[in-house]
Amino acid sequence: MRLLRQRAINGEITEKIKRAAEREGVSPEEIREGVANGTAVVLGSNINSAAEPLAVGTGLTAKVSASVGLYGGNSSIEGEIEKIRAALDAGTDALMDLSVSGDIEAMRGKTLAISKKPVGTLPLYQTLAESAKKYGSSLKMTDGDILEMIERHAKGGVDFIALHCGTTREVIDRAKRERRVDPLVSYGGSHLIGWMLHNDRENPLYERFDDVLEIAAKYDVTLSFADGMRPGCLSDSLDGAQVHELVILGELTARAQAVGVQVMVKGPGHVPLAQIKTTIALQKRLCHGAPYFVFGPLVTDTAAGYDHISAAIGGAISAWAGAEFICCVTPAEHIGIPNSKQVREGVIAARIAAHAGDLGRGMPGAVRWDRELSVARKKLDWGAQIKLSVDPATCENVWKDRSGAFSSKCTMCGPYCAMEIVTAYLDIANVHEC
Amino acid sequence: MRLLRQRAINGEITEKIKRAAEREGVSPEEIREGVANGTAVVLGSNINSAAEPLAVGTGLTAKVSASVGLYGGNSSIEGEIEKIRAALDAGTDALMDLSVSGDIEAMRGKTLAISKKPVGTLPLYQTLAESAKKYGSSLKMTDGDILEMIERHAKGGVDFIALHCGTTREVIDRAKRERRVDPLVSYGGSHLIGWMLHNDRENPLYERFDDVLEIAAKYDVTLSFADGMRPGCLSDSLDGAQVHELVILGELTARAQAVGVQVMVKGPGHVPLAQIKTTIALQKRLCHGAPYFVFGPLVTDTAAGYDHISAAIGGAISAWAGAEFICCVTPAEHIGIPNSKQVREGVIAARIAAHAGDLGRGMPGAVRWDRELSVARKKLDWGAQIKLSVDPATCENVWKDRSGAFSSKCTMCGPYCAMEIVTAYLDIANVHEC
Repeated sequence: MRLLRQRAINGEITEKIKRAAEREGVSPEEIREGVANGTAVVLGSNINSAAEPLAVGTGLTAKVSASVGLYGGNSSIEGEIEKIRAALDAGTDALMDLSVSGDIEAMRGKTLAISKKPVGTLPLYQTLAESAKKYGSSLKMTDGDILEMIERHAKGGVDFIALHCGTTREVIDRAKRERRVDPLVSYGGSHLIGWMLHNDRENPLYERFDDVLEIAAKYDVTLSFADGMRPGCLSDSLDGAQVHELVILGELTARAQAVGVQVMVKGPGHVPLAQIKTTIALQKRLCHGAPYFVFGPLVTDTAAGYDHISAAIGGAISAWAGAEFICCVTPAEHIGIPNSKQVREGVIAARIAAHAGDLGRGMPGAVRWDRELSVARKKLDWGAQIKLSVDPATCENVWKDRSGAFSSKCTMCGPYCAMEIVTAYLDIANVHEC
Repeated sequence: MRLLRQRAINGEITEKIKRAAEREGVSPEEIREGVANGTAVVLGSNINSAAEPLAVGTGLTAKVSASVGLYGGNSSIEGEIEKIRAALDAGTDALMDLSVSGDIEAMRGKTLAISKKPVGTLPLYQTLAESAKKYGSSLKMTDGDILEMIERHAKGGVDFIALHCGTTREVIDRAKRERRVDPLVSYGGSHLIGWMLHNDRENPLYERFDDVLEIAAKYDVTLSFADGMRPGCLSDSLDGAQVHELVILGELTARAQAVGVQVMVKGPGHVPLAQIKTTIALQKRLCHGAPYFVFGPLVTDTAAGYDHISAAIGGAISAWAGAEFICCVTPAEHIGIPNSKQVREGVIAARIAAHAGDLGRGMPGAVRWDRELSVARKKLDWGAQIKLSVDPATCENVWKDRSGAFSSKCTMCGPYCAMEIVTAYLDIANVHEC
């Protein structure tokens, strides 16, 4: 009876719920109710977490998560730390350490040590890497190796753990029949499927889901269901394989919630504008209202080099339609590993999207923020405008570099000033402060 | 009977309609029908235009327009030409020369000489500047001065002329009563209103609209109704003043269409996500289906320094909802005059938005483009991916600078490769070419 979700169901407002509510600016009861219903999670519930608790869920402001991690020979822990700092400085709400190579253990330790924001990981990556070393091939990885790694991450204080629990043999066979343009783009999903096919086995994360739940419950860590069938282009969006996996994830969501484990579901990816609302509505229905953690989504496949903008469009509409958590996409997406400047751009673009979604839903705090900035703009109060902008440092830099405009003096009208006439008539000087 | 629209109504497919259809990849009959219905315009109809005809309207791909122009002491014709070249290089469909100071006449000449894309202007700016010189005050400008300037621009071959025809005294009085957070953000609108109040006159562009139409008909130039009541922040969106002006613009649209003059209507500005569809639907209804030329719109007021991203979100949804023409917003919006790099960023962001909207509407050419890129991505064909991306130069630069990823060789699986197993099973190698 010690899990945060179980206590919430029992009407208890825990310390972490209280802190999450304070950060959110809502009543603790609202967070408690969301957690109890399964429509919200409090990240940072892990008994070993050092993170400031963060509520993600229905009716709350949309949050963003930035991804870092060791990947290939050119990456280093120092380089990734620089990206973590860039993401935190840009205002990310959470981080994911998605290291696949190098000293994954040390990287995770550093990430958890630096970040006061919740941290997520994908333990399969490390299992693959360690199995490759131990057995000479990641294809020789065992169920036990995976479960042991999940427990290692949970024990270490990771706040949310991404697992491809719904990518079953049935789903893979469906993907084969669907004849997708781009059948598989999930890195972890691909390796897991390769392992399943090579060993002629079912997905161990599905088969041994009760064991997964036991670990999750032991540390009160939140599960984040990863989507192995995440579409890799607009053409494949909402196809049978994606939806079939989502149906299974809905089933697993219910099983997790039944034992008091918090769950989020990861989503696409690449979705045409006309399918975003359907995608969100379907996830909400199938997954019993569990928070949806979307990757963008990109609304066109053609914006390589600018995928943060494509993702901001999809992210805004997703947040408006009910997605609660947005995974940042950087300008380097589809091209390479982002540098820290690109991570920063990705976080800001995702924050703009999340906030636009909040405004779309008429959230009072979001509306107030925009109104305060607009009043400052009307008053030509540059200090307040910069301070209230989504990224004050960048706003100030653009302002310093600007090549003119908004000079208060002109001589066009001679002795009478058209602006002064308008100002007087419309009572503009008397700015309406709310 | 020589106006392009009149000829379209009579069933005639003119040479310019043919060329616009060819650029669009649709039948000339489709363009003719849209022009005849008033739901499309062919920019470049001006008898003195040197522009490649461009169709803008319902059922066609969304287009983008970039703005340049002399503004204040720091600007120069050379600097603006650099921006024109940046905008054209980034793929803008049209340009607006919005010069308000300096040698406006020379700047317009240069713009028209350089651009093969349609060019729009706002003649009131030059009238104000010349009146200030001639009379010592722009407030002494006369109706005749404005009409003379409109004719000068039309005669010079300008393709679309922006005019604040709907900002009447009634509308201004309503704005006063509305107590907006930011009553007026339209530069031309503010000066025009100042003139009206100072001289206690009705809007000359409204009062003498028949004279405006006569000039438009003489040169077959397209009118672009500017919105003096354009909201300057989300709080003011869709208020009485904005909608009242739109009602009047609808009336003027019908009057223009009745005499065979092509019309577009300019729109906001700043619109929360939840009001975009309503805004577009209202314009479509009130303005008899005339093309809607939106400025973004921004979906949050807080993205100063990143307003191109805020605008891309609003532009995409607008285009999806039926807006046909998107005015580019640069990262310098609300802060200063953009440099050429920022103009380029603004054009690309708007093109992503327009294309996302096209994809949202399922336009076959747009869907094909994304699918071709996705097939190239699946094949790891970097040459094709770069060539098919929205901005090949930037995509290539990010690619060259990338710090890893997508290496085709790894050693994780040892003798068996998980990727090869998956590839074989899902028949991935056999990419489905459409």
